[in-house]
Amino acid sequence: MNKYEVQTSQNPDTLQDHYRATRILTEEICKPLQAEDFVVQPSDEVSPPKWHLAHTTWFFETFLLVKYVEDYRLFDKDYPYLFNSYYEHEGERWQRQHRGLLTRPWVKEIMAYRNYVDEHMLQFFENHKLNDEQQRICWIGIHHEQQHQELLVYDIKYIFGINPLFPVYRNTTSELNQSAQISEANWLKVDEGLYTIGMDGNAFHFDNEEGKHKHFLHAFAVQDRLITCGEYLEFIEGGGYQDFRYWLMEGFEWVKSEAIHAPMYWQNKKGKWLNYTLAGLQPIHPDLPVAHLSFYEADAYARWKGFRLPTEFEWEVACQQYAPEIPQEANLLDQRNYSPAVSQAGNYQFYGDLWEWTQSAYLPYPYYKKVEGALGEYNGKFMVNQMVLRGGSYATLSQHIRPTYRNFFHPEMRWQFSGVRLAKHL
Amino acid sequence: MNKYEVQTSQNPDTLQDHYRATRILTEEICKPLQAEDFVVQPSDEVSPPKWHLAHTTWFFETFLLVKYVEDYRLFDKDYPYLFNSYYEHEGERWQRQHRGLLTRPWVKEIMAYRNYVDEHMLQFFENHKLNDEQQRICWIGIHHEQQHQELLVYDIKYIFGINPLFPVYRNTTSELNQSAQISEANWLKVDEGLYTIGMDGNAFHFDNEEGKHKHFLHAFAVQDRLITCGEYLEFIEGGGYQDFRYWLMEGFEWVKSEAIHAPMYWQNKKGKWLNYTLAGLQPIHPDLPVAHLSFYEADAYARWKGFRLPTEFEWEVACQQYAPEIPQEANLLDQRNYSPAVSQAGNYQFYGDLWEWTQSAYLPYPYYKKVEGALGEYNGKFMVNQMVLRGGSYATLSQHIRPTYRNFFHPEMRWQFSGVRLAKHL
Amino acid sequence: MNKYEVQTSQNPDTLQDHYRATRILTEEICKPLQAEDFVVQPSDEVSPPKWHLAHTTWFFETFLLVKYVEDYRLFDKDYPYLFNSYYEHEGERWQRQHRGLLTRPWVKEIMAYRNYVDEHMLQFFENHKLNDEQQRICWIGIHHEQQHQELLVYDIKYIFGINPLFPVYRNTTSELNQSAQISEANWLKVDEGLYTIGMDGNAFHFDNEEGKHKHFLHAFAVQDRLITCGEYLEFIEGGGYQDFRYWLMEGFEWVKSEAIHAPMYWQNKKGKWLNYTLAGLQPIHPDLPVAHLSFYEADAYARWKGFRLPTEFEWEVACQQYAPEIPQEANLLDQRNYSPAVSQAGNYQFYGDLWEWTQSAYLPYPYYKKVEGALGEYNGKFMVNQMVLRGGSYATLSQHIRPTYRNFFHPEMRWQFSGVRLAKHL
Amino acid sequence: MNKYEVQTSQNPDTLQDHYRATRILTEEICKPLQAEDFVVQPSDEVSPPKWHLAHTTWFFETFLLVKYVEDYRLFDKDYPYLFNSYYEHEGERWQRQHRGLLTRPWVKEIMAYRNYVDEHMLQFFENHKLNDEQQRICWIGIHHEQQHQELLVYDIKYIFGINPLFPVYRNTTSELNQSAQISEANWLKVDEGLYTIGMDGNAFHFDNEEGKHKHFLHAFAVQDRLITCGEYLEFIEGGGYQDFRYWLMEGFEWVKSEAIHAPMYWQNKKGKWLNYTLAGLQPIHPDLPVAHLSFYEADAYARWKGFRLPTEFEWEVACQQYAPEIPQEANLLDQRNYSPAVSQAGNYQFYGDLWEWTQSAYLPYPYYKKVEGALGEYNGKFMVNQMVLRGGSYATLSQHIRPTYRNFFHPEMRWQFSGVRLAKHL
Repeated sequence: MNKYEVQTSQNPDTLQDHYRATRILTEEICKPLQAEDFVVQPSDEVSPPKWHLAHTTWFFETFLLVKYVEDYRLFDKDYPYLFNSYYEHEGERWQRQHRGLLTRPWVKEIMAYRNYVDEHMLQFFENHKLNDEQQRICWIGIHHEQQHQELLVYDIKYIFGINPLFPVYRNTTSELNQSAQISEANWLKVDEGLYTIGMDGNAFHFDNEEGKHKHFLHAFAVQDRLITCGEYLEFIEGGGYQDFRYWLMEGFEWVKSEAIHAPMYWQNKKGKWLNYTLAGLQPIHPDLPVAHLSFYEADAYARWKGFRLPTEFEWEVACQQYAPEIPQEANLLDQRNYSPAVSQAGNYQFYGDLWEWTQSAYLPYPYYKKVEGALGEYNGKFMVNQMVLRGGSYATLSQHIRPTYRNFFHPEMRWQFSGVRLAKHL
Repeated sequence: MNKYEVQTSQNPDTLQDHYRATRILTEEICKPLQAEDFVVQPSDEVSPPKWHLAHTTWFFETFLLVKYVEDYRLFDKDYPYLFNSYYEHEGERWQRQHRGLLTRPWVKEIMAYRNYVDEHMLQFFENHKLNDEQQRICWIGIHHEQQHQELLVYDIKYIFGINPLFPVYRNTTSELNQSAQISEANWLKVDEGLYTIGMDGNAFHFDNEEGKHKHFLHAFAVQDRLITCGEYLEFIEGGGYQDFRYWLMEGFEWVKSEAIHAPMYWQNKKGKWLNYTLAGLQPIHPDLPVAHLSFYEADAYARWKGFRLPTEFEWEVACQQYAPEIPQEANLLDQRNYSPAVSQAGNYQFYGDLWEWTQSAYLPYPYYKKVEGALGEYNGKFMVNQMVLRGGSYATLSQHIRPTYRNFFHPEMRWQFSGVRLAKHL
Repeated sequence: MNKYEVQTSQNPDTLQDHYRATRILTEEICKPLQAEDFVVQPSDEVSPPKWHLAHTTWFFETFLLVKYVEDYRLFDKDYPYLFNSYYEHEGERWQRQHRGLLTRPWVKEIMAYRNYVDEHMLQFFENHKLNDEQQRICWIGIHHEQQHQELLVYDIKYIFGINPLFPVYRNTTSELNQSAQISEANWLKVDEGLYTIGMDGNAFHFDNEEGKHKHFLHAFAVQDRLITCGEYLEFIEGGGYQDFRYWLMEGFEWVKSEAIHAPMYWQNKKGKWLNYTLAGLQPIHPDLPVAHLSFYEADAYARWKGFRLPTEFEWEVACQQYAPEIPQEANLLDQRNYSPAVSQAGNYQFYGDLWEWTQSAYLPYPYYKKVEGALGEYNGKFMVNQMVLRGGSYATLSQHIRPTYRNFFHPEMRWQFSGVRLAKHL
Repeated sequence: MNKYEVQTSQNPDTLQDHYRATRILTEEICKPLQAEDFVVQPSDEVSPPKWHLAHTTWFFETFLLVKYVEDYRLFDKDYPYLFNSYYEHEGERWQRQHRGLLTRPWVKEIMAYRNYVDEHMLQFFENHKLNDEQQRICWIGIHHEQQHQELLVYDIKYIFGINPLFPVYRNTTSELNQSAQISEANWLKVDEGLYTIGMDGNAFHFDNEEGKHKHFLHAFAVQDRLITCGEYLEFIEGGGYQDFRYWLMEGFEWVKSEAIHAPMYWQNKKGKWLNYTLAGLQPIHPDLPVAHLSFYEADAYARWKGFRLPTEFEWEVACQQYAPEIPQEANLLDQRNYSPAVSQAGNYQFYGDLWEWTQSAYLPYPYYKKVEGALGEYNGKFMVNQMVLRGGSYATLSQHIRPTYRNFFHPEMRWQFSGVRLAKHL
């Protein structure tokens, strides 16, 4: 979902290693799937897993091999049409909502495509000393594929979660989690003041977080952990979904028209709440953070509690102040944890459990400027009708965990791993 | 799509053989597919091939094994919910338009389901002397699966035909066809008179053709062959799709809203007409019968030529009069021909090329009576808003070729193998 | 909805009188309306009353004045675009489903349009001896406007009936009706035989009923009166709307998707059934014929009773046999009765209460041939996906009451005055 | 669209005068309409004029008369159901999108309703000394009706503008405007700094602008006038609508799916651009501000010019700095100007021509708090998926013109009087 700025300081020697590691991880995520699982698109926002495998490959082929490798021959002349996602600069493309209609190319053909492009990329690394622009694009390609790794997990969960057989993706719910005890939430206070938002410099970042700039905040506080399933259940059982007073009007219309009455993947069987997880259908764990909420639900819950969601600026400042170090034990995808953790007291958990809805609309920063060409389409053209999420989930790669990182979704979306943290003014 | 009446005269010894042959043929039709090809549903009327494999199996399990075999255990308790098509009597079912969302059960699980049911069916044949009712249901199950064999061919063609890679299903276009020459159409005359329509007796037939009854016809004639691609091209190039005068109003609205300008599977590439066939994308063969027409197109073509479509009664009488014998060389699925043939002079071809649209709406015969229970849903509840087709296509089994057989589709449908024969009053 | 053949035998002297009477009656029907009532289109099938006033006028202007009166000047150059209904021959037109968006021209402007055309028509009658073709078209225009008179009543009822204030159109429910007692229905038997269907000759008729031809009928019987509200209530209270066994599949899907549970205009208030009538909201009268049924409901009711609907041919033959004379006391619009009547014993009531659904699809008669030009669009292009109704309603003009008259609607339509008569085979 | 805070300082003696003046103006706006014009709803966002007449009356009846006048009898027990807009607190209501289906109550009945409520309101003023809360609600009712006066003008223009007869509402295009010459736009600079946004105190304001708070701005500049039709024409003719690079993705999809190629009400007749105005169809005036743009178009235009839209905070600060006085000559509805004006050099025009799109999403201010009860629904529940507009149009009442006023619409809306002012960073 985003482009970045300068990247030259990253050690170019490691580029090739990162490339390789990223490509391998994508395929590992797909290991539990059979060919049939790769094909379908049960909702417009979901892409078939094989499409992710091909599209991330197309990115390297299009923006590096085709541009910089003399005599490079496309693996297949039809693939650019099939696997371009939304880059108008790159010409016509198969309609997004029809991705799930294509049975061909088969998974094994797409794996051959991946191998073909990987071989040419490795030759490219061997035979060329990549210049700054080429390195920059390659790093983008890596981060791009990492974003698709997270989407792959979302999409696999969606595909399995609507299946009445409720298949198990991986039996990974840690025992530890099951016995953990949640502690009372504490308020972390931040003083009124002029703060710096955004990022500059050489470390990798996307263009939507580019440009340090000042932002004034009034005094506020945020809680030191996410809202749990047990807490959210009180909202459900207290009639929260039926009481218009807590809802934005479009949110309440959505609740009624879609018959929403609980987070996505929750179902009530004979009075008992179950939750579809990557480990199959499970009883609700009351102390785990509640996930798969839309912005509308997160916002209504906060209002029901008498609080509000933080702005993305408050979140960033609180995070910088209370959790400047990213903990090693974060529940991240590259450490192969496929479940959230129970928050422990004193552990100001800002990253790696769930993306946290903010009350900020996704808008350009003051000095935001789209880059020229196709990669300028990475982020900027989405800056309307979406809300910002911060923090990262247990399906996020560690390279995508930082205080300035901006994720964004439409307010009714909830197949992503999203939760809620409360804020208030002081 | 239909139920039948009495069947006791068919030799019960052959029932088991027919069962076996039918089950094998279904799987053979799927041989050229890979796992991915079995999953998708590109349009509401198309079912994923693996659904056909499972649904035809569910039919035998539900209506024979569950009912008549003591201690029979379902292969999987969720399958009846997943693989019931439209039998309200049999309870809740997965929504038809969502069949393409299910990646599980996998094809190999469904094949295990087929094997499990086949084994129990064969034991059932061995261990019981099937009574009349059981034989009757078993014959229906066989004919039901044969109908799905034809649908499988339609659906595979649809799935392949919308894929921009235009995969080949089977390289079977006979050389003979390519060089054949079509002869001028002749008119076959039928005198005014009181004729008998429909079927009685012991030979297998569905309930919608049951009940011999009298029908008066004024003198008419029908052509002795179907309209060809070359003839239809004149209609296209003469502006037929743009001239409202030839169209039913709902047909013309359909043409405009769907941007129809040629039969399904035809495309014009730089002035040259191509046709997606089971052997891949091919140039139009001008002497082959034009296929994949909707009723609206067939009707408009007939009007453009100054003629009309026959009624289903005219078709049945003309067929009885001019082609009482079903030719052995008919291009039928159980003879593994996957293409239509060029009509030869003197060969009154009424069967086995394409289903022929009639101008008759699909309505009950005078003495039509639904049978009780689930099998009564086979035919009767579809008798509105559909038009009758007669004859059979090259994907029709020979058991489904007879003068009284009534097929039916909505007037805008055209993924079935349908063509046009002209008629006129004398 | 239809065109006719020859009309020369009708006395041309009376043509002018008929013209005048028809034009006056249309305006009388609109007398109880205020300007606001003339504008809206609450459903696609409903037209704003002022549109009917203008469209019927446009018909005379377009097909007579423009064609045959030298130097005739259009009343307004934009009106042909606004008030053409569906005549492709007459060029572009305002979209049907947007008729209710137009506040201009105002009603008084349309009345001026009517006066302008009437004056020119009367001059045309005075100054010309109309030739056969001109007389023919004028008669069509008169019958066309009479059809729109009936539609006007339907549309006014729709516009009033969805208004939560339930306005009264006219206080006309006759006292007699309220106290009448319905008698048991009797079966009228018709023998097997070859009958004549359709009409020839000089009396006015539309092209869809043109052409006497033979039709064989097996022995059958129809009831001598329509089903009543009281009888239909048993179907409702017996769970008829919830039991799929009585319904065509598309009918049952319609019932569920539209949440249909009673005839149109019926509502249940605290256990009491009320019916919106032209005299306002009224208690159900159990002995009056049940009206505003769709074909699906009529068909399901018949099946629930163990019978069926008649075919249109059976209806025509039974009518010719049992009710050859059209009774003077029929409840017709030109006698200003705005309610149905209770059927009396011995009074074979075939006309003038409600249009009666048949089980016949609307198809061309054997020798049907569309006339050339715009008037050929009157009937023929609608011959698909509709069902035939016979008989006429209390909003039908007496000129439209005859045994051969074919009315037609889509099977889910029910704002027209439609009811059900049962049939069975003998 | 909004609620307010304290109002006690406004002279209560004038309350009654304001009430009376406001009620009269609403009816004056409707003077050029005939009964038919009051009824229709050509698009979901448009309400029939008679609905505005009734709804504004319902507001006073519901929130004052019913609550505070002993023995007050509703004018009609059904009106609360019909004329509640979106207040869930006030119970069930007629669906918004069906407002255009109701022909009753007639305009004259609604005028009687207005008179009845006005009489009771005037008695209420006479007989009671209104307490603070009652005064507060009455002021809200007045401002509420003033907002509906502006909406009335939008809706009348919509109803007339889609009519192929293009009726004239009022012949008011001033001669002056036609000959005025636009001057080059100048940049108004604002320094970096911490500014105050929002409003406190006793002067009337809505809750969404309540609460002075600090906001940091980087140095920026805005132009001193709006973009003109002539300037916008260059964008059109330069292919702006076809070039994806200037558009937000959802904006470009909207352009394609709705076939947008010019501002609303513009049409190209044989190469000449015409514009539907309240004075009828007129040639484009190149020096007048371009109106009826969506946010997507405003945003794309700004990007095409190499600039951007201002944020709402930038707009407010620039306005406070450069145009603290609201000019008397503003083109406002209560001065009965029905057209925009040509901007003159040196006349920093920030108000009263067109609402100006900002790049700010409509979100709550830091200390925003919904009031309890129905009036808390005035503003807060709309704070998602909408963009803020500032300034006011020539259909805005002068009481609604102030630097802190926040208007808001969805980004694709363009029937409101909206234009574009450019901004840039320094």
